[in-house]
Amino acid sequence: MAKNIAIVGATGVVGQTLLQVLAERNFPLGEVRLLASGRSAGKKYNFRGQELTVSEARAEAFSAVDIAFFCASGEVARALAPAAVASGAVVIDNSSAFRLDEDVPLIVPEINAGAISNHRGIIANPNCSTIIMAVALKPLYDAVGLKRVVVSTYQAVSGAGIEAVEELKEQVLAFAQGKTVAAKILPAAAAEKHYQVAFNVIPQVDLFVEHGYTKEEWKMVYETRKIFGDNSIAITATTVRVPVMWCHSLSMNVETVQPLSVKQARELLHNSPGLILLDDIENQIYPMPIDFPDSDEVFVGRLRQDFSQPNAFNLWAVGNQLRKGAASNAVQIAEILK
Amino acid sequence: MAKNIAIVGATGVVGQTLLQVLAERNFPLGEVRLLASGRSAGKKYNFRGQELTVSEARAEAFSAVDIAFFCASGEVARALAPAAVASGAVVIDNSSAFRLDEDVPLIVPEINAGAISNHRGIIANPNCSTIIMAVALKPLYDAVGLKRVVVSTYQAVSGAGIEAVEELKEQVLAFAQGKTVAAKILPAAAAEKHYQVAFNVIPQVDLFVEHGYTKEEWKMVYETRKIFGDNSIAITATTVRVPVMWCHSLSMNVETVQPLSVKQARELLHNSPGLILLDDIENQIYPMPIDFPDSDEVFVGRLRQDFSQPNAFNLWAVGNQLRKGAASNAVQIAEILK
Repeated sequence: MAKNIAIVGATGVVGQTLLQVLAERNFPLGEVRLLASGRSAGKKYNFRGQELTVSEARAEAFSAVDIAFFCASGEVARALAPAAVASGAVVIDNSSAFRLDEDVPLIVPEINAGAISNHRGIIANPNCSTIIMAVALKPLYDAVGLKRVVVSTYQAVSGAGIEAVEELKEQVLAFAQGKTVAAKILPAAAAEKHYQVAFNVIPQVDLFVEHGYTKEEWKMVYETRKIFGDNSIAITATTVRVPVMWCHSLSMNVETVQPLSVKQARELLHNSPGLILLDDIENQIYPMPIDFPDSDEVFVGRLRQDFSQPNAFNLWAVGNQLRKGAASNAVQIAEILK
Repeated sequence: MAKNIAIVGATGVVGQTLLQVLAERNFPLGEVRLLASGRSAGKKYNFRGQELTVSEARAEAFSAVDIAFFCASGEVARALAPAAVASGAVVIDNSSAFRLDEDVPLIVPEINAGAISNHRGIIANPNCSTIIMAVALKPLYDAVGLKRVVVSTYQAVSGAGIEAVEELKEQVLAFAQGKTVAAKILPAAAAEKHYQVAFNVIPQVDLFVEHGYTKEEWKMVYETRKIFGDNSIAITATTVRVPVMWCHSLSMNVETVQPLSVKQARELLHNSPGLILLDDIENQIYPMPIDFPDSDEVFVGRLRQDFSQPNAFNLWAVGNQLRKGAASNAVQIAEILK
């Protein structure tokens, strides 16, 4: 049955990707309402031959909406999601506002689709790096359990919004023209200092919080545990921004509870939903971010035994964080709600 | 006392950096002989006001040479180092040819300068990523021992030679002009396939060898153990090329033998030779590769307890791989030989 939908943050990079994914997946749509800040009201977008005009996102904007996709900040989600729910909409929120709330399911459909039915109006879409890691770990978790994961990330600038993509492009063009490179957005728009990302890597994604970790690093710990429903998984993360346009990459060291051969691990990763194994080093086949501008799957490779520890593996994963890490995961959730 | 030196591979990026470091450190030089392949013979370089002409590197080229710096491939080192030694020179070799030979000391002066005196003509300079990691780990090793290290690297293109630097620049310029981006060098000149590095990360540094690992990944295991003289250190590595011109960065997860507080670890890292602690997250201070085009030190930051494991820390290190990772380390060794 066709659904009336609203997209809050429709002008942002995730909102725009969401429109693209809805069209590609032929989601049964009734009315499509584009919402954004007052500044963007009046902007027009062409969507499947129809001209859509952006309205201001306000509490009254959700009447007759069945599903409200929130692709905005946590502040916007906290301010408007309750009004959307009160209007009768189901909110699928891409911000971190509600992710760890007890009565809000945090969903990666390949892992815990069953938890969707517990929702009380709000369903949370996990952090982008977390989704990619969780999809890659899921078959290993199911087969032999996860004891500990040490992850280092290589995160694309588009994870910090369209302005960060523009910033990288501008920095590269400035370099090509022999001009000075300016930095205004990264590592985080809300941070006090901004650093060049072109020809650099920045070991900070989002702001710093407790114990010397960034928000992004803690999300990978707590959200992963909630998605698997298992607080026994020990996780530690170092999150790093790299001068890549799209796709996050993850270097994971994984210790399993039960033993598992590399051959068995390879078979498990080869047959898991949403996951594609690209691992043929004889032919230099492994996933790289440049290869997946429009993919919804998580790609894994460089699987090998870690000889420094029993029951341990090294694994490399790449996923498009605007799609599987955000928009596509949200649409998958909406498809289950139908 | 002034030394006559030869530089084999003088036209390469490490050879050129070596000349710069010798001048900066005011190394007491007699004759400076630049050697390279026949192709480069006749090239001229200005060095401290003197014009030097490149000669072909041959077995006869080492007469009256006191120290022969080899900044070339393992093949060149194997072919010519014995002749240099037979001529009476001490060889300081930057290739991997002799690093794991029992009678060849593998030296990071801050760690095992004492082993230099065991040389029989050849002293090996370790792999660049390994030097950076070893300098960062040294104070922790001395104080509490190292049980296990899980490292993921973010390696600059200059580690693959001047051609790889040119390749990244050309790819970025092609992007700026809207042209197609060509790849001819990375991930390794000797590899069958080559991939774009601009706006990408490549989870392959050097060629693949046993058990699914690259040569670079095994170097970080075996060379680190040899430098510390301790085969009990468990190490596993994932090495990744990033679109950065200079400086390798390392994300390290370190498990110590004895317990250590973050405060104690910070003090140890703060007072170690060759190491500079840049770790003040309140002010967004952490090392980034763009900041150290000409530095000889290793810079560490993002030190924090790893709550997923007892006695474990996360640590971020950055070092200029052409300088401390290659040329400066070699000159430091030569200074001790004086």
